[in-house]
Amino acid sequence: MNNNAQANSEEIITAALLVIGDEILSGRTKDKNISHVADHLTDIGIRLKEVRIVPDEEAEIVAAVNELRARYTYLFTTGGIGPTHDDITADSVAKAFSVGIDIDERALKPMLAYFEKRGVEVTPARLRMARIPFGAELVENTISVAPGFMLGNVIVMAGIPAVMQVMLDAATKFLKTGKKMLSAAIDLNRPEGEIAAVFGELQQRYPDVPMGSYPFYRDGKPGTQLVLRSIDPDRLAAAENELKMALAARGWL
Amino acid sequence: MNNNAQANSEEIITAALLVIGDEILSGRTKDKNISHVADHLTDIGIRLKEVRIVPDEEAEIVAAVNELRARYTYLFTTGGIGPTHDDITADSVAKAFSVGIDIDERALKPMLAYFEKRGVEVTPARLRMARIPFGAELVENTISVAPGFMLGNVIVMAGIPAVMQVMLDAATKFLKTGKKMLSAAIDLNRPEGEIAAVFGELQQRYPDVPMGSYPFYRDGKPGTQLVLRSIDPDRLAAAENELKMALAARGWL
Repeated sequence: MNNNAQANSEEIITAALLVIGDEILSGRTKDKNISHVADHLTDIGIRLKEVRIVPDEEAEIVAAVNELRARYTYLFTTGGIGPTHDDITADSVAKAFSVGIDIDERALKPMLAYFEKRGVEVTPARLRMARIPFGAELVENTISVAPGFMLGNVIVMAGIPAVMQVMLDAATKFLKTGKKMLSAAIDLNRPEGEIAAVFGELQQRYPDVPMGSYPFYRDGKPGTQLVLRSIDPDRLAAAENELKMALAARGWL
Repeated sequence: MNNNAQANSEEIITAALLVIGDEILSGRTKDKNISHVADHLTDIGIRLKEVRIVPDEEAEIVAAVNELRARYTYLFTTGGIGPTHDDITADSVAKAFSVGIDIDERALKPMLAYFEKRGVEVTPARLRMARIPFGAELVENTISVAPGFMLGNVIVMAGIPAVMQVMLDAATKFLKTGKKMLSAAIDLNRPEGEIAAVFGELQQRYPDVPMGSYPFYRDGKPGTQLVLRSIDPDRLAAAENELKMALAARGWL
């Protein structure tokens, strides 16, 4: 097992998520992508370290893409790759990378076939969805064909949740994945304020096992969920065991 | 009415929201605060321009607080003001402002009264919740008493949605509010790709009325919601009227 913190830290794959869209910031649309991306990345051993939501403004998107792609192993984006004038993500990402962008034959062909089969009119607006920055890999969209793409370490996906989800699955094959972050959770019928001292003391002795406490109310009574996390199953089990003993000794478990 | 873009732009009050918590980034907890804050700010005429989610790490919180408070009229934060070791928001905000922090009598007194009344033990961990940066105004918590605070243009609130909501209501009295952003929405049983040309052309003639289109599927058929936004009711009505005429002329309405 990896009891070497140095070795573990080398295996950490990080990511940020950039959600693009005025409609999320105005409250008109309720985001459903953040929690899905968070769950998926946790499942495949990639640590989501930051999320940002920005409006459909080129300067904002370019600045956020360049800051976040430099900082994390991967940057995922959602939103802004449809056919209308407010869909400016692909062009903004091309600008962030200082590369050109144009209709991509790999994207266009299946889209034209899909349109023909369904009798959908080929409009200049629809053709915009085949615009892909030079040098990008396509990310398949098995629902409505118009693809996402991966350029460098940036994965650009649709905003519609169902389409985003198939793109995220499709993109996963391009990704390095790390050791899965494991977790253990204990629910207690005790308020946070009573547990804090015991819990904080344990955290000090296990600095490599991040611990969080999350208060809840059930049937009008306060409780707390204690969560321990580690990529090392042995360290996680040791910390969990100590915590359970400390709680049991106080009659709390 | 305000048809003067200069005068309007002077009235724009902006905000960012900083969501603090490992549990959101890991997917363990589903955020419920972003959409509530977005709705509330839109209602009171404050424009939410950016949201960030960062982990419970002091350096991350301090950097985000300092960047966002400099950039927007207000910065709201949620999460990390409970009693446990991972609750570091108040200390991080004090550090961002380079001010001290200590137990605040204004916060402590009602908390002690509340604890006594309910027979809740006064622990050092619970007293931590009375730590308020020097110079801050308290933001009342009518649910569980431990307050939020406002320091400069930064409003610090709890992460538990019910508590966050009463704090947001309480903080609103401290805020300058702008002209409410008005919106008009039209649902069409047409896919985005067909509407894009007409819609984009209208946007060009109304650069002061931001327009967005949001695809949806109902009963397996594609549709699009077109949304126009302005703080000026006359401009909004004029753009909406032109859009309806253009759609009706094509038999789409």
